[in-house]
Amino acid sequence: MEVASGSGDKAGFFTQGRSWLKALPVKFKANMVGMARNIKKLGQEDPRRVIHSLKVGLALTLVSTFYYFRLFKNLGVDAIWAVMTVVLVFEFSVGATLGKGLNRGMATLLAGGLGIGANHLAKHSGHIGKPILILFLVFVQATISTFLRFVPKIKARCDYGMLIFILTFSMITVSGLKEDHILELAHNRLSTVSIGAAACVIVAIVVYPVWAGEDLHNLIALNIENLGNSLEGFGVEYFIRTGCEDDKKFLKGYKSVLNSKNSEESLANFAAWEPGHGRFTFGHPWKLYLKVGTLARECAYRIEALNGYLNADIQASSEVSNIIQEACTKMSRESGKSLKELALAIKIMVQPSSADSHIENAKSAAKNIKSLLKSGIWEDIDLLKVIPGVTVASILIDVVTYTEKISESIYELASKAQFKSVKPTLSPKKLHSGQNQSVKSAQMVNCPDAGINVRESTLPSPPSENSSAPKASKQRMGVQI
Amino acid sequence: MEVASGSGDKAGFFTQGRSWLKALPVKFKANMVGMARNIKKLGQEDPRRVIHSLKVGLALTLVSTFYYFRLFKNLGVDAIWAVMTVVLVFEFSVGATLGKGLNRGMATLLAGGLGIGANHLAKHSGHIGKPILILFLVFVQATISTFLRFVPKIKARCDYGMLIFILTFSMITVSGLKEDHILELAHNRLSTVSIGAAACVIVAIVVYPVWAGEDLHNLIALNIENLGNSLEGFGVEYFIRTGCEDDKKFLKGYKSVLNSKNSEESLANFAAWEPGHGRFTFGHPWKLYLKVGTLARECAYRIEALNGYLNADIQASSEVSNIIQEACTKMSRESGKSLKELALAIKIMVQPSSADSHIENAKSAAKNIKSLLKSGIWEDIDLLKVIPGVTVASILIDVVTYTEKISESIYELASKAQFKSVKPTLSPKKLHSGQNQSVKSAQMVNCPDAGINVRESTLPSPPSENSSAPKASKQRMGVQI
Repeated sequence: MEVASGSGDKAGFFTQGRSWLKALPVKFKANMVGMARNIKKLGQEDPRRVIHSLKVGLALTLVSTFYYFRLFKNLGVDAIWAVMTVVLVFEFSVGATLGKGLNRGMATLLAGGLGIGANHLAKHSGHIGKPILILFLVFVQATISTFLRFVPKIKARCDYGMLIFILTFSMITVSGLKEDHILELAHNRLSTVSIGAAACVIVAIVVYPVWAGEDLHNLIALNIENLGNSLEGFGVEYFIRTGCEDDKKFLKGYKSVLNSKNSEESLANFAAWEPGHGRFTFGHPWKLYLKVGTLARECAYRIEALNGYLNADIQASSEVSNIIQEACTKMSRESGKSLKELALAIKIMVQPSSADSHIENAKSAAKNIKSLLKSGIWEDIDLLKVIPGVTVASILIDVVTYTEKISESIYELASKAQFKSVKPTLSPKKLHSGQNQSVKSAQMVNCPDAGINVRESTLPSPPSENSSAPKASKQRMGVQI
Repeated sequence: MEVASGSGDKAGFFTQGRSWLKALPVKFKANMVGMARNIKKLGQEDPRRVIHSLKVGLALTLVSTFYYFRLFKNLGVDAIWAVMTVVLVFEFSVGATLGKGLNRGMATLLAGGLGIGANHLAKHSGHIGKPILILFLVFVQATISTFLRFVPKIKARCDYGMLIFILTFSMITVSGLKEDHILELAHNRLSTVSIGAAACVIVAIVVYPVWAGEDLHNLIALNIENLGNSLEGFGVEYFIRTGCEDDKKFLKGYKSVLNSKNSEESLANFAAWEPGHGRFTFGHPWKLYLKVGTLARECAYRIEALNGYLNADIQASSEVSNIIQEACTKMSRESGKSLKELALAIKIMVQPSSADSHIENAKSAAKNIKSLLKSGIWEDIDLLKVIPGVTVASILIDVVTYTEKISESIYELASKAQFKSVKPTLSPKKLHSGQNQSVKSAQMVNCPDAGINVRESTLPSPPSENSSAPKASKQRMGVQI
């Protein structure tokens, strides 16, 4: 029944309004609690975020103290540029900070020099010519520099530098100051930028440094481990269907690999700025990690296609399952194990020879299934029931191929980066214990498995750096400033 | 034979050095020519890059002219902040520029107010207490603000604002100026930032505007068209193998979809800042494009898996091919056509009903192949030879499912964004001619095809905006400044 009277509507409106107003503080509180929980989670996921925030606070307070007590006497009020530089240059990783600091310094130097030259040129151009020439130069350099920022190589390495170049050149030429004043301005700007950038770099390196290179190394290892976990779980889940929630979480591990291209590329760019650190010498082949990453992604696309069959309407019938199950679970288990061995080899930086046997096993399983399919046992079975199982088997054969490719690319990385070689011993030995969970889970791979010839060696105990799990992909990556 | 004498080595070294020196100008010239060619290509690929560069030059020269002739008299030398703001705020799209401008303005206002408050508080804290309180506040706000930048929502919408907040608050509290001076500083900074940001926004909107929203719209349409082209080509290439280079180029179209997630997300973020423009009203459902994009990517993963079979060692034998070819090529052709129809519907903003018939055709082909596989014609064929073909068929069935999902998501978009509906007519009609090549290629879909019931309607001629093909994914996306 509809309410016809307008006053009834109005009363309803007010009642609604009142209850909305009453609910407001509750909603606000719920929002606040939710936000606080999210923020806490962000810190717990990666405590380095909290440390980074404190580091920025420290560097800024340091430079502010110097400024506040006028410790840069000769720089005067220009010293505020040092404070600005800290805010703009300090980034999450040492590489990004160094890259931005160097970009800012070099661009200021270059633009300062050119700006002084332009001013000198303008001085001799007469009363009318001077402003025209100056504004023309500002226009031309801004246009050219902006366009150059579209060049992929420049964008990757010195986008921020181009920006600071435009800024400094414009400021110095337009300032309209006399030559000696300009020299002072340029000198002050360079000094303050250097002081600010130096403060950032020192704090970034000395206090709990975050190395982009190490993050890239760990990210690639983690991605490959995730692929391994997904694959290892897939065979069991498809044919046996444990339905265990933990297993399902592992199965989804490959998802993070699908979209990690941008993270990997920016980390590799930042890593190129970094000096040698920890286990990585200067000139470590960071680009090879990108190659491994690309192959890992190709493999992840296949696993994504496989995963579609977990929830498909048509499942492999039990007759078919019984026939192909053994070879398929062996393919997925062995390629999964080999990927986890490869991930471990990257992590502890040894030659990935411990994965070879698993790859051989996976390849022999692939051969088995091919000959199984050749045999006559299929004649009585409805082909429609065969399809899902056969498709899964076929994609798994493809995955085994990619596993081999990934292994080859990691061998290349290991030889270029001079990973230690491990002597194969006769009996499999457990790794020394490490604190890291991912290392632990990778260790399990090294346990002797029934029927699998694991030739493992006495590996060095994993360095403590491993205890910080790579969460790089979730962190801010972009050069925002 | 080894040369034993050291002098021989030395002579060789010098000869090498000389020839290296001689080759230097040639190499330098070749490098320069290569670079010039690359730069020219960048401009030709997307002429909007050249226009953007000129726009930055224009805005900067405009503000510089005002500054140079002291037209902001009351702002004094602080007016240089307007020049800085132009360099830092002007971005490729209107949305990004507006977002940064608003971020900078709001952050300056907020930090200015809080900075003045902090200074007022510090004034009453005594000779020793004042610097301690000020530096403590700088530390605390820098730490908290830096940490908040990790929150995904804040990072997406106001990362730059947080940075400017830290900067302005630190500058104002640390400056150590007297209260009235600080008020003047805060006022000047806000005025100059507003002038600079306004100049950017006006030039960005008035001179050949680049709308992030339109780019997102076009990018999604192009991605789906690329998927369609790849699929349409796949069936022919797999079963008939034309080996035509042009076809192969089309086949690779889906590759650009695999990694377009980041581009799509930043464009959607920028688009949210934009006012209504052209065919898009304010509040256009940009987030739904991301949903379509995600499904398109899922579909692209399947096509990537399919593509692996084009170059696989084991090909479907001719016996098998003959049996499944018709249904498979129909599935790939029809789902390809439906995707291209969907792309066209997005482009010209009409209800995507013209894709329905193709989807139905693809689904019926999928049914056909299922019943084919059920039939007894396979009994005499070696199963190993059946596998590749059957796998391809199976993945194609999966692709048809995803095509339907994409269609549903585009229907949702079309209803939320109020796309025009088209009246189905009895006879298929050609579209009016459009300049755009992609529109042309999409038109071909509308030609009546033997045996396919295309119910097409008189579509409005595509608006001229379409003539600028979306190259957004190749452009700089990140909020760098």
